[in-house]
Amino acid sequence: MITIPCIDTESAAAAANRQAILTKPTGALGRLEALSIRLAGIQSTERPTIKAPAIVIAAASHGVADSGVSAYPSSVTAQMVANFINGGACINVLAKQTGAKLVLVDAGVHPEPPSSPALQQLGVRKGGSRNISEEPAMTSSEAQTLIKVGISKAADLINDGVDLIAIGEMGIGNTTSAAAITAAALELEPSAVTGRGTGVDEVQLEKKHKAIQQALDLHKPIATDGLEIVTALGGLEIAYLAGICLGAAQGKTAILLDGYVATSAGLIATLINPTAKDYMIAGHLSPEPGHRLQLEFLCHEPLLDLGMRLGEGSGAAMAIPIVQAAAATLSDMATFEGAGVDNR
Amino acid sequence: MITIPCIDTESAAAAANRQAILTKPTGALGRLEALSIRLAGIQSTERPTIKAPAIVIAAASHGVADSGVSAYPSSVTAQMVANFINGGACINVLAKQTGAKLVLVDAGVHPEPPSSPALQQLGVRKGGSRNISEEPAMTSSEAQTLIKVGISKAADLINDGVDLIAIGEMGIGNTTSAAAITAAALELEPSAVTGRGTGVDEVQLEKKHKAIQQALDLHKPIATDGLEIVTALGGLEIAYLAGICLGAAQGKTAILLDGYVATSAGLIATLINPTAKDYMIAGHLSPEPGHRLQLEFLCHEPLLDLGMRLGEGSGAAMAIPIVQAAAATLSDMATFEGAGVDNR
Repeated sequence: MITIPCIDTESAAAAANRQAILTKPTGALGRLEALSIRLAGIQSTERPTIKAPAIVIAAASHGVADSGVSAYPSSVTAQMVANFINGGACINVLAKQTGAKLVLVDAGVHPEPPSSPALQQLGVRKGGSRNISEEPAMTSSEAQTLIKVGISKAADLINDGVDLIAIGEMGIGNTTSAAAITAAALELEPSAVTGRGTGVDEVQLEKKHKAIQQALDLHKPIATDGLEIVTALGGLEIAYLAGICLGAAQGKTAILLDGYVATSAGLIATLINPTAKDYMIAGHLSPEPGHRLQLEFLCHEPLLDLGMRLGEGSGAAMAIPIVQAAAATLSDMATFEGAGVDNR
Repeated sequence: MITIPCIDTESAAAAANRQAILTKPTGALGRLEALSIRLAGIQSTERPTIKAPAIVIAAASHGVADSGVSAYPSSVTAQMVANFINGGACINVLAKQTGAKLVLVDAGVHPEPPSSPALQQLGVRKGGSRNISEEPAMTSSEAQTLIKVGISKAADLINDGVDLIAIGEMGIGNTTSAAAITAAALELEPSAVTGRGTGVDEVQLEKKHKAIQQALDLHKPIATDGLEIVTALGGLEIAYLAGICLGAAQGKTAILLDGYVATSAGLIATLINPTAKDYMIAGHLSPEPGHRLQLEFLCHEPLLDLGMRLGEGSGAAMAIPIVQAAAATLSDMATFEGAGVDNR
């Protein structure tokens, strides 16, 4: 049993009272107000702060890529990890701009990316996940280990002072895994949750759809069993990031979700312990049709809708300043009384 | 005649070509891509940067506040300017977080706010605008002076290295002025453009509606004459901020619009020279019904929709990191070839 503390409703209530006396018309900060109150509950303080955000990017290869479900060759996963290490990817640019610590994790990339002190290689399952349309993605033991390692990593980050964990991923083929997980957990037809990922054509989309249907027919996971779903339909990075989510929630730390694949990890974490979702914030809405359905299941409304569909935690990174602004306005603005401003 | 250079379409085209070879699927950065291409055109470079944003907040008192159109007393304008000077307002918190220079301008606040080196007092028309439902807000000469002073201020900021100018305002009663301006410029009924501002009740809303109708009936400004509209329906801060917009465009510098009142200034600037709008970016959609109509007229889609309705440039400030991310991803990401990543 992975235990997670409940949100502190007293701190949230105190924050709501504080919002009402800040020098602005009631409600004038819109969604920042509700978000700030959630942060107060998450951090157990009337005045939350987000000063040290981290972005955890987990990468893995996917056996299902052999089924021709992606517009890009599987080799791109390792090449993009090298790009992350070298600082040339979108997420490097955004992490730098937002001042977030970037944590790079190889959850099972094949062929192996260049070794680097900037890259943590988990070694739980080398060679990537198996093709989910033919076999389970990984063993239950591997899934459990990845989750445990993720929980432990989140705890380490929190111990180091990190106060917001954004999650992102890289893995050619992983929107296929995300769609299969979402169809299984939400008991939906594959057609409702399958999109074009990095931009597949009609033929590839048909292959993707077929692979997902085969995977669901083969494994028939129980819809409420997060461990079983991720074991069967996988994504080594998804299992690991589910652990990150659980560990962040255990450490009373806000989790910033990215797009379809990252939110699949949030979904798995929430099936394992439903209180995990109370620590989650939806950063950016993906154009993948299944993402909106995931967020509705988790009861979260995305902060941004800029049409981004890159992964790498890029949508979450774009939302970091918004989360920081929500905390800072609540915590640092003057009150009517303190500033000598007449209230209505 | 206020001349404005055209957007550099060659730089924009070069930026579009660069977007296509960056290490990401085509289109995967969503709206950031089009925004980055616009910035390239604005700055006349394939690799635009936004490193030194400024937020110009202009405050003024409004005679029409005497008609009972606001939920707050007119005294709040000067008190909030004092709050800006003392660093306690929302925009102080957001400017600090985003690293933007905050420029505070008294365009005609009555009673006068405390003098401070942090506050520029224009002195063009002391005592605020007249009640637009009874008289023109200001003289044509005052409006022209405010616009000129705004143009000159924008030029100074650009000379000092500012590369993005966000505009915001403070003035109890100024959504009444904004609604009158919008109705006049877009030839709409007051009911289509009048909202609850800081949160007026039904009785106040009726007074607001009546004041706007009276102002339109009295002045009957020509819909295409920006100078005549702002003279009659005013807002000293709106005239000044229209000048800021014109000066920014003259200096090939991006303008970030805030909500309903700030965008009214953008509207006036665009009526004076239509190319001004090519330099504008819409930061955040206001819940005021007229704001969407203004942005449709200007052909701009807001980047954010967080339900904020505060003014002070707060919605624009929230969008600064998005504009910076658009520029930085275009300019700093690696290309497929440079990073050794296989393209499809």
